[in-house]
Amino acid sequence: MHHISKVVVITERILLERVAEVIERAGATGYTYVAAGGRGARGKRTASSRAQVSGLDANVKIEVLVSDRARAEAICDAVAAEFFDDYSGITYLEPVEILRPSKF
Amino acid sequence: MHHISKVVVITERILLERVAEVIERAGATGYTYVAAGGRGARGKRTASSRAQVSGLDANVKIEVLVSDRARAEAICDAVAAEFFDDYSGITYLEPVEILRPSKF
Amino acid sequence: MHHISKVVVITERILLERVAEVIERAGATGYTYVAAGGRGARGKRTASSRAQVSGLDANVKIEVLVSDRARAEAICDAVAAEFFDDYSGITYLEPVEILRPSKF
Repeated sequence: MHHISKVVVITERILLERVAEVIERAGATGYTYVAAGGRGARGKRTASSRAQVSGLDANVKIEVLVSDRARAEAICDAVAAEFFDDYSGITYLEPVEILRPSKF
Repeated sequence: MHHISKVVVITERILLERVAEVIERAGATGYTYVAAGGRGARGKRTASSRAQVSGLDANVKIEVLVSDRARAEAICDAVAAEFFDDYSGITYLEPVEILRPSKF
Repeated sequence: MHHISKVVVITERILLERVAEVIERAGATGYTYVAAGGRGARGKRTASSRAQVSGLDANVKIEVLVSDRARAEAICDAVAAEFFDDYSGITYLEPVEILRPSKF
């Protein structure tokens, strides 16, 4: 098993294409996304009351497997720098073990 | 990078609002949820046959980033204690690394 | 808290039932799935251009909690061996901590 990183980006759905471009520009060869809703206390468009819990069409969770740790951190930095001054979102890393590093 | 915890709750969709209340009462400032389906062997409403695999509208997966480990465990405990005697569900922790601890 | 493994399988939606069978045959008692889209650089049906980013109905992300590490790796192996020569997909492990090992 090989230890690699998973970059997770949770942000507004309308940014999916643009975040994907940042990911691909950073050299990642693939990503997965799922529809997400929630309540956030981050970024400029932060929801400030229970009434502003967003539905499943409002947000997106994007995941990218990256074998190189420095590249994973660079993707986090790039996404945060490009979008999170103007849009709500968060990015973080999770440890992953994978059998076949050539398959992603 | 800062090491924090992600609390994951997978349970019945109808509990989303109530689980969110428990999370907020525990001091978390935001959460993300996605629609989920599956087959469980847990809780009182456990599916006991292949035919009872649930669709994507039946369950919800809720994720909360928590910087304080003790608070993360407390959320797991509170959710399990409040709901899992009567509803199917599970809760667990995952390790996460984050660049900007102030952004969640 | 008990340290266990989460097996993650991301593959084509049409394989959900068949992957579930492999998981159950390996002795796992439950799983969760979510609808996913994305862009892959893996497997035979790899998308080779931006235009081939798939929608949320194309892929599925399946997660299984497994207390035994060897069994978790065996599920990864079995899924990869049975499907990933012919279909796009990936499987990996994530570390998880759980309060009540008897509940999954």
